[in-house]
Amino acid sequence: MAFIKTEIRRGAYYDSVVLMHLQRSLASQPGVLDAGVVMAADANKDVLAQSELLTDEIKAAGADDLAIVVRGEDEAAAQAAIQKVDELIAARRSQSVGEEYRSKTLESASKRAPDAQWVLVSVPGRYAAGVARQALDLGKNVFLYSDNVPLDDEISLKQESSRRGLLVMGPDCGTAIVNGVGLGFANKVRRGPIGVVAAAGTGLQQVTSRIHQMGGGITQALGTGGRDLSEAVNAATARQALDLLNRDPETKVIVLLSKPPAARVADELVAAARLVSKPVVVNFIGHATAMRRVDNVTFAATIEETAEIAVRLAANWKDETDDLNPGRFAPGQRYLRGLFSGGTLAYEAQLVLREYLPAVYSNAPLSKDLRLKDSLASREHTLIDLGEDEFTVGRLHPMMDNALRVRRLEKEAADPQTAIILLDVVLGFGAHPNPAGELAPAIAEARKNAQAGGRFLEVVAVVTGTDEDPQDMNAQIQLLKEAGAIVETSNDAAARRVGRLARALEGAQSAAESPVAPVSLSAIHERMSALNVGLESFTESLAAQSAAVVHVDWKPAAGGDEKMMSLLARMKKKA
Amino acid sequence: MAFIKTEIRRGAYYDSVVLMHLQRSLASQPGVLDAGVVMAADANKDVLAQSELLTDEIKAAGADDLAIVVRGEDEAAAQAAIQKVDELIAARRSQSVGEEYRSKTLESASKRAPDAQWVLVSVPGRYAAGVARQALDLGKNVFLYSDNVPLDDEISLKQESSRRGLLVMGPDCGTAIVNGVGLGFANKVRRGPIGVVAAAGTGLQQVTSRIHQMGGGITQALGTGGRDLSEAVNAATARQALDLLNRDPETKVIVLLSKPPAARVADELVAAARLVSKPVVVNFIGHATAMRRVDNVTFAATIEETAEIAVRLAANWKDETDDLNPGRFAPGQRYLRGLFSGGTLAYEAQLVLREYLPAVYSNAPLSKDLRLKDSLASREHTLIDLGEDEFTVGRLHPMMDNALRVRRLEKEAADPQTAIILLDVVLGFGAHPNPAGELAPAIAEARKNAQAGGRFLEVVAVVTGTDEDPQDMNAQIQLLKEAGAIVETSNDAAARRVGRLARALEGAQSAAESPVAPVSLSAIHERMSALNVGLESFTESLAAQSAAVVHVDWKPAAGGDEKMMSLLARMKKKA
Repeated sequence: MAFIKTEIRRGAYYDSVVLMHLQRSLASQPGVLDAGVVMAADANKDVLAQSELLTDEIKAAGADDLAIVVRGEDEAAAQAAIQKVDELIAARRSQSVGEEYRSKTLESASKRAPDAQWVLVSVPGRYAAGVARQALDLGKNVFLYSDNVPLDDEISLKQESSRRGLLVMGPDCGTAIVNGVGLGFANKVRRGPIGVVAAAGTGLQQVTSRIHQMGGGITQALGTGGRDLSEAVNAATARQALDLLNRDPETKVIVLLSKPPAARVADELVAAARLVSKPVVVNFIGHATAMRRVDNVTFAATIEETAEIAVRLAANWKDETDDLNPGRFAPGQRYLRGLFSGGTLAYEAQLVLREYLPAVYSNAPLSKDLRLKDSLASREHTLIDLGEDEFTVGRLHPMMDNALRVRRLEKEAADPQTAIILLDVVLGFGAHPNPAGELAPAIAEARKNAQAGGRFLEVVAVVTGTDEDPQDMNAQIQLLKEAGAIVETSNDAAARRVGRLARALEGAQSAAESPVAPVSLSAIHERMSALNVGLESFTESLAAQSAAVVHVDWKPAAGGDEKMMSLLARMKKKA
Repeated sequence: MAFIKTEIRRGAYYDSVVLMHLQRSLASQPGVLDAGVVMAADANKDVLAQSELLTDEIKAAGADDLAIVVRGEDEAAAQAAIQKVDELIAARRSQSVGEEYRSKTLESASKRAPDAQWVLVSVPGRYAAGVARQALDLGKNVFLYSDNVPLDDEISLKQESSRRGLLVMGPDCGTAIVNGVGLGFANKVRRGPIGVVAAAGTGLQQVTSRIHQMGGGITQALGTGGRDLSEAVNAATARQALDLLNRDPETKVIVLLSKPPAARVADELVAAARLVSKPVVVNFIGHATAMRRVDNVTFAATIEETAEIAVRLAANWKDETDDLNPGRFAPGQRYLRGLFSGGTLAYEAQLVLREYLPAVYSNAPLSKDLRLKDSLASREHTLIDLGEDEFTVGRLHPMMDNALRVRRLEKEAADPQTAIILLDVVLGFGAHPNPAGELAPAIAEARKNAQAGGRFLEVVAVVTGTDEDPQDMNAQIQLLKEAGAIVETSNDAAARRVGRLARALEGAQSAAESPVAPVSLSAIHERMSALNVGLESFTESLAAQSAAVVHVDWKPAAGGDEKMMSLLARMKKKA
């Protein structure tokens, strides 16, 4: 006849991993059919009820009380098991963290390990913000594993940490890899040139694992917590982490991974990523983008693709921040003028330029508001499709007859506001037998005239063709280069090149717009030394990775009254 | 003293290339300062006016009249140049197309080259539809270069051609490559395994040229005309071309390139591309997509990227249409049940599955309408994130404690509607020391129970980890495989795999939904033989590429009265 025995320990706190192990040990005692060991919170009472272990005594207990319940084959077996509880707890404790690495409080732990730059916090959510505040007050960076932390606490913690140049990863940050040491859940991943910023759950684990499986490696993988990229939190941690990895000389490629952020936050983060001096692979999972790449920023759609691209970039990154040298141009020279013969090329170029310039006007524009009133008169940045019907009625297509384009080129080049001219040169059967033969002299002349007027004219030509074309592509390219043109064979690359230059002429971006205090590189470069408040298993894991760690034997203060505790913490802080 | 001399030839038609050459020849005569040779349409009068060559006689002439004007250093020079006009025209003609390859009408040309499967049409837009209709009536495919063709004509031409299994590329189709021969404007591109369908301007030229430059090659490059993907034309030609390249055994990868189509047309074309048995690279330039790849369809953003991906796929395509074998499952088994421990993995999996299944319900859904009313009760296709707060309050995270997941697995497996179970298994520091040790027996048991109930249970596990993780990833994978699970290390790949299977169980798609008559493969496989109506330069270009060609000496019928001509054509057709 089965017999249920319950024991309640009022105000006794153990972390959930310890309790799980105790429960398993009890369940494996002789004559024991089932066992439950939980803090007597309502959710846990539901779990016990499912196993028919919710006794009246446990029903009456509170969230800060430890409930132990055993169903034995008979009373003696249940009784014997319950009596072994303290012995089992002690055995577990002695096999995990030695007493010499334990402190009662965060303060005392901090004195024991003054070099520790990190505090791991995994206490129950309602206590976590208080512990994290203590850690910031001690000047430590925080890995905040706890979930169910109020949003207001996250916001105030991150305001404080941003001001002080400290990181708060989380709350609900499940994983991170700092200087080779996994915090929370983390895979053992090869060291390498890729730095990761991620919301910090299994996304981060999957991307770092796949990078490892593909032969790549990680410098740092920094978590932000799932709410960091919300409008309210405003990507406080993601911005700090991006800045930190940008300054980290060992990080060559950065991965930025998150569920879709708030739209404004997404835009700002992409803008921040574009100011980074390294390739950044952005994956806002499920966030639709028209472009896959803008300068140093590549957008990936799945975690798999993110890993692939990061590994590829780490192997082959080519710096495209060529010397734009805007000083070559005269004051007042600002605008790009594109003169295309190909409609699709004109369209794609505008699409790429949209990532660089606020507005490019056209007779074949991306949107109505960008339509030129008069196709014959350029306005600011302008890109003309000379193959549009309005130009070809009764005339030959500009791919066959360069006359109209040469005349327009002369006109644009004479405009003192014109800085850059972008042309396509399309070869092949049917096209003009020698377009460069007509365009190159016009380009040389236009550049000479500009020079005579004290100006500099950048001409970029995108040549579409092959070495087998009747015009001989390489000879055509040579002619254009001799006339002073820069030649690309990829329309995308040509558009990006003139986009970068035109943007530079529009005026430099405010490079240092962040008023945030930088996080010290020592936090990710010095040997990991941490204080762990919460799950003992994290202390074990850090020790297993040869990190220095002091475990804090945290208990809910003031008998678990969190309001009182929070009040105490604030009073202390103000003092 | 400069002298201007004009000659008008009423009702004399020459194509615009011939006129341009004549104009150039005249301009290079001794003592000639400038020359104009145009059909006296209003647009051309404007061009002459810019050069101050618009004399009163030309002002009075009409669109079907040839206007020749010369500005000479003196009257004698101008007079001498004008007198050379016929000689210059004759010289040009004899050097281009021999009389033996000329016919007066399309019908007579067709008799001269009965094997010709193609007709090139480049007459002025207002006449072009009539010529194209004649070509279709002769059973020929049409390359319709002419622009300014009315939309209604395009629609009716394509309805006719779709019904007859003929292609109409265009109108405004500037380029195509058919069986190695460039039509219109086209680059000389290596033969190879990539087939292209494109709106057919410089986009097609750029993508084929870049493919060539990257070492790849082209089977066919088929143009559709810029309006083909509009709502009105409904992608008539694109659908035919996609179908043709799908049936073409030499084409291994298909590229589909266009400016953004109408939304409905884009969706339908992507759906059609997914039914193709080959990889398809889709670039609707500037069309934002959340996913980069769905099965055989990869989305590219720029032409450059399109070429890169096509070349890569042509080299490395791996057929993933594994044998889904839906027959293994019992009737009534339909649904996918995902049990995730990782929030980001759960999110990404739903995102991928959205491409396969109409609805996947979840406690952490992509959108509100997909939220489960009760997280404990699955509904149709369901994916649960067991790491959500609702499951973790007072409990360990499912990455540490498999108990809850094992229980849910048993429950889902017992549901006779469940066909597939998808699990993530996350390894690493902090995670359970041996998750497969607990999950594998549960998987084996679930599969056994299903089998005992006359059902088949597919279990797919995605393992996140590395070979250096404390759990030993390879050993974990082995355990799961021994239990009968299919194991992936990429979440994306796992989600795609179960998506394909669940879609197959939802019921097969209507594979042959197109009522369109197929275009004969012989049109792209037999040696190019064409009739060219319009620009003589196209005849020259075809001859230069060793294609068989008969030139039609087209003139506007009925003295250029297009209404009369159109009427005549229709009467003739009805007869």
